[in-house]
Amino acid sequence: MVFTRKDVLGLEDLTAEEISLILDTAESMKEVLKREIKKVPTLRGRSVVTLFYEPSTRTRTSFELAAKYLGADTTSIAVATSSVQKGESLRDTARTIEAMAADVIIIRHSAAGAPHQLARWVSSRVINAGDGAHEHPTQALLDLYTIREKKGCFRGLKVAILGDIAHSRVARSNIWGLTKLGAEVRVVGPATLMPPDIHNLGVKVYYNWEEGLKDVDVINVLRIQLERQKKGLFPSIREYTRLYGLDEEKLQVASPDVLVLHPGPVNRGVEISAEVQDGHHAAINEQVTNGVAVRMALLYLLMAGGEKDEISA
Amino acid sequence: MVFTRKDVLGLEDLTAEEISLILDTAESMKEVLKREIKKVPTLRGRSVVTLFYEPSTRTRTSFELAAKYLGADTTSIAVATSSVQKGESLRDTARTIEAMAADVIIIRHSAAGAPHQLARWVSSRVINAGDGAHEHPTQALLDLYTIREKKGCFRGLKVAILGDIAHSRVARSNIWGLTKLGAEVRVVGPATLMPPDIHNLGVKVYYNWEEGLKDVDVINVLRIQLERQKKGLFPSIREYTRLYGLDEEKLQVASPDVLVLHPGPVNRGVEISAEVQDGHHAAINEQVTNGVAVRMALLYLLMAGGEKDEISA
Amino acid sequence: MVFTRKDVLGLEDLTAEEISLILDTAESMKEVLKREIKKVPTLRGRSVVTLFYEPSTRTRTSFELAAKYLGADTTSIAVATSSVQKGESLRDTARTIEAMAADVIIIRHSAAGAPHQLARWVSSRVINAGDGAHEHPTQALLDLYTIREKKGCFRGLKVAILGDIAHSRVARSNIWGLTKLGAEVRVVGPATLMPPDIHNLGVKVYYNWEEGLKDVDVINVLRIQLERQKKGLFPSIREYTRLYGLDEEKLQVASPDVLVLHPGPVNRGVEISAEVQDGHHAAINEQVTNGVAVRMALLYLLMAGGEKDEISA
Repeated sequence: MVFTRKDVLGLEDLTAEEISLILDTAESMKEVLKREIKKVPTLRGRSVVTLFYEPSTRTRTSFELAAKYLGADTTSIAVATSSVQKGESLRDTARTIEAMAADVIIIRHSAAGAPHQLARWVSSRVINAGDGAHEHPTQALLDLYTIREKKGCFRGLKVAILGDIAHSRVARSNIWGLTKLGAEVRVVGPATLMPPDIHNLGVKVYYNWEEGLKDVDVINVLRIQLERQKKGLFPSIREYTRLYGLDEEKLQVASPDVLVLHPGPVNRGVEISAEVQDGHHAAINEQVTNGVAVRMALLYLLMAGGEKDEISA
Repeated sequence: MVFTRKDVLGLEDLTAEEISLILDTAESMKEVLKREIKKVPTLRGRSVVTLFYEPSTRTRTSFELAAKYLGADTTSIAVATSSVQKGESLRDTARTIEAMAADVIIIRHSAAGAPHQLARWVSSRVINAGDGAHEHPTQALLDLYTIREKKGCFRGLKVAILGDIAHSRVARSNIWGLTKLGAEVRVVGPATLMPPDIHNLGVKVYYNWEEGLKDVDVINVLRIQLERQKKGLFPSIREYTRLYGLDEEKLQVASPDVLVLHPGPVNRGVEISAEVQDGHHAAINEQVTNGVAVRMALLYLLMAGGEKDEISA
Repeated sequence: MVFTRKDVLGLEDLTAEEISLILDTAESMKEVLKREIKKVPTLRGRSVVTLFYEPSTRTRTSFELAAKYLGADTTSIAVATSSVQKGESLRDTARTIEAMAADVIIIRHSAAGAPHQLARWVSSRVINAGDGAHEHPTQALLDLYTIREKKGCFRGLKVAILGDIAHSRVARSNIWGLTKLGAEVRVVGPATLMPPDIHNLGVKVYYNWEEGLKDVDVINVLRIQLERQKKGLFPSIREYTRLYGLDEEKLQVASPDVLVLHPGPVNRGVEISAEVQDGHHAAINEQVTNGVAVRMALLYLLMAGGEKDEISA
C-alpha cells in the first residue's frame, strides 16, 4: 500500500488502513531509533519547517529530531500569537514558507481548522501538530502505536480517556482513531468538562471513575490545563484530583494488566499520582520514543511515498 | 569571472559585473531549488552564523535554508538589542563568533554601518542582512533577480520605488543596484518620506502617483512601518493608502505588463490592495524563492570563490 | 587510554589522566577547526540536545557548532526558569529528552548539582555546561588547554584566579583542574567575595593584588556579575576596578610573559582594562576556539569512546 495523501490533518480524515500503514512504518522507524547510528538518509535534501503559533518544546523537538534522523533539513519559526494578525496573515506566512521550497510545513495553531486552511493554500505537505481543541493527530498516532505494541490489537479493547475531554485535542483525535480501529472507547470526567457533541462521537460517557474505569485495558490520562481550572470551570484542583486523579486505588477497578498513557508533560500528583506515573503500568516515556518514530513515519510517507525497502538504507 | 570580495555589505560597493555574476549564479541555484533533492554539498564542513540584532523571521529563515541546501552548518544568535551595549560589545561578539571558526557571519543591526565595522574586525566573511535605513543588499539582489527574470534586461527599463523612501534600506539598495545596471529609477512618495540626499542618488523624484507611475515597467512597493506612521511622520494610514497605496486604479497608468514587487511581509490593504497583491502582475512569492537562490549564490561565491562547475555536484 | 565515563559533570571528579586525555583529543580537534572543511563525520547519526535553564549564547553556540562539526544532529531546548518547577519536573524533562533517543544532554542550570541528578536519572550521556556557583567544567578545560598550549606544562606554574571567587563556577572548576595537574593556584579578590570553604581547596588566598599577582605565569580574570554588585556585596564597581581590575600597572608585578585569560563576555574597563584585553598577553579569542575544540573532544570521547584513529576520517 502506498500513502497518497498530501497532508495529515487529523484522524477524523484517515481510514483504518491508512492508520495501520502509518503504525507499520513507525515500527521500522523505531528500529532505526534503537541503532547507535540513528540515520536514514532517505529525506536528504528535503526541507521541513515547523511553524508554531503556540509554544511547545516537546512536540517541536520531537518533529525536529524525527526530520533530522531522516536526513532532512529543518528550520523553526516560532510566532508569538500577539504579533500576528489572524486570517490572511497566516496565508501570507504559509505562502512565504512554501516559496522557500519547504517540502513539509508542521503547524501548531490555537485556532481549530488553521492547518486545514494552510493545506489548501500551499503545495507543501502539511502536518497538524495541534489545532485549538480540535485535533492532535501525531499524539493520537503515538498513543495508538503504544497501545498496539503493548496489547497487540484494538478489536474488543476497552480504552478509557480520563479528564478534561471538552478542551482536549488529544481526546478528540484518540476517539476518532480508536473507534476506527475497533476499540471500545469510554470517556470519563466531570460533566462540566464534556464537550456538547460528546454523544455523537461513538463513545460511552461516564461521570464516575468507578464505573468508567471498570475492567478497562487502557487508561489515557489527559493533562489538566491548570490555567483553565483557575477560570472556575471546575470547583478546585484538589477536588479534581480526588474525583478523577488516577491513583493506585482507582487503578484497582481496571484490568490487572491495564496500560496507562499520558501525553505529558505531567502535573505530578494532580491528574495522576506519582506512584502510578512511575509504576509498571505506565508507558509515558515509551510514548515519547514512539512519538519520534510516528513522526518519522509521517514525514517519510508524505515525502517518499512509502516505498518501504528504502528505510534500511 | 571569479568573485574576489571578502564581504557583501551593500550594492553601493558592488560593480555591475559583480551583480551580474551573483544573478547568474543564483540562476543555477534556482534550478537546485526546483529539484526534489535540494542539496548541493559544496559547502559541507563550512559554518554560517546568523547574528540578528533586530528580529526577522523571513530573512533569517531564508539565509538558514540557503546555507543548509548547500550543506553548510548553521547556528543562529538572536540578540535582544536592549541587553547589548553598543560599539565595542559588537566587536567582542564578532570576534567570539569568528573564533568559533565561523566562515560566514550574517548580520542584521539597527545601526547603519554596523556590518561594515564587523567586516573590518573579523576575517570571517560578512553579509549584511540589513543595517538601519542604510542597505539591505540581499533584498535588492532578489528584486533585481526577479526583474531580470521577468523583463530580460535592465537597460531602458523604468522602475518606480513607491512609498517611504527615507526610512527604507530596501529602497536605497535598489536604487544603487538598478542605476548601476542601467535602469531608469523613479522614487514616488510624500515629500515628508523622502531622504534629504534623494537628489544626489541619480533618481527622478515624484510626489504624485499619476506622474510617478506613468508607463513604468516595474513598481517596487515598500512596506509601511506602521509604528513609524504613529509617530506623526504622515497624516494618517488612511490618507497614505489613498494617495500612495497601490491599487487597480493606480496600476492603470503603468505599462500594461507592469511587474509589481513587494519585500514582504505585506500590510494587506495598506501599501498595496489585496487585488493587486494577489493579481497576476505581482511576483511576491517568487521573490521569496529568488531570495533563497540569491542567498545561496552569495554564500557559494564567498566561500567557494565561484568555480561554477561544482554547483551541479 | 580509553575514556570510560558516562558523563562529564565537573573537574572535581576527573583524574589528571582523564583531563590529559581530553586535552590531547582537543588538540586533534583543533587541527580539524583549522581546515577549510571542518567536518569529522564520526558522530553522524548521533543526537545532542542542549537543555539550558539559564540563557547563554556563547556556551550553547560553542557546543552546537562542536556537535555539528562532528556530524551529530543537534536540537536546543531553552527553558525559562520561571515556568519550570524544580525537582521532579527536571526529571520528567530529562526522561523525555532521553526517550527521544538523545545520545548526549548538555545542561546548564542555576542549581548546583542539577547535572549530577540528571546523569543518574537518564542513560543518555550528560555534560555539565554550568550549574549554579558549582562547576563549569568545559570552561575550565578550555582554560587548561590554553594554558598548556602557551606554557607547555602545569608543574610549577603559578596561576592566579582574580575576582569574585565566591560566586564563580569557573573559579571552582579551574581550582580543581589546575591543582590536579600540579599548578600552584592562588585566588585573589576581596574577602567579601571569597567562599567560606576557600581554605580547604588547596589554594593560596590573597586579598591584595600586589602580593597575589606577584611573579604569576597566568592570570585568569573572572567576569564580574554586575547585577550581584548592585546587591551591595561590594562597595562599588569603581572601587572594584581600582582594587582588582586588571590593568597595565597591575600586570607589571606578574611574570614578564604572563598569560591573561577571561571566560568572556568581558565587561570592558571593569574587571579588565581595554589595553590588557586587547594586548599581547591576553588569549581571550583563542580561548573561544579552544572551547569548541574541547567540546568536540568531550562529545567524541563520550560517544565514540576514544579510538583516536577515527578523528582524521
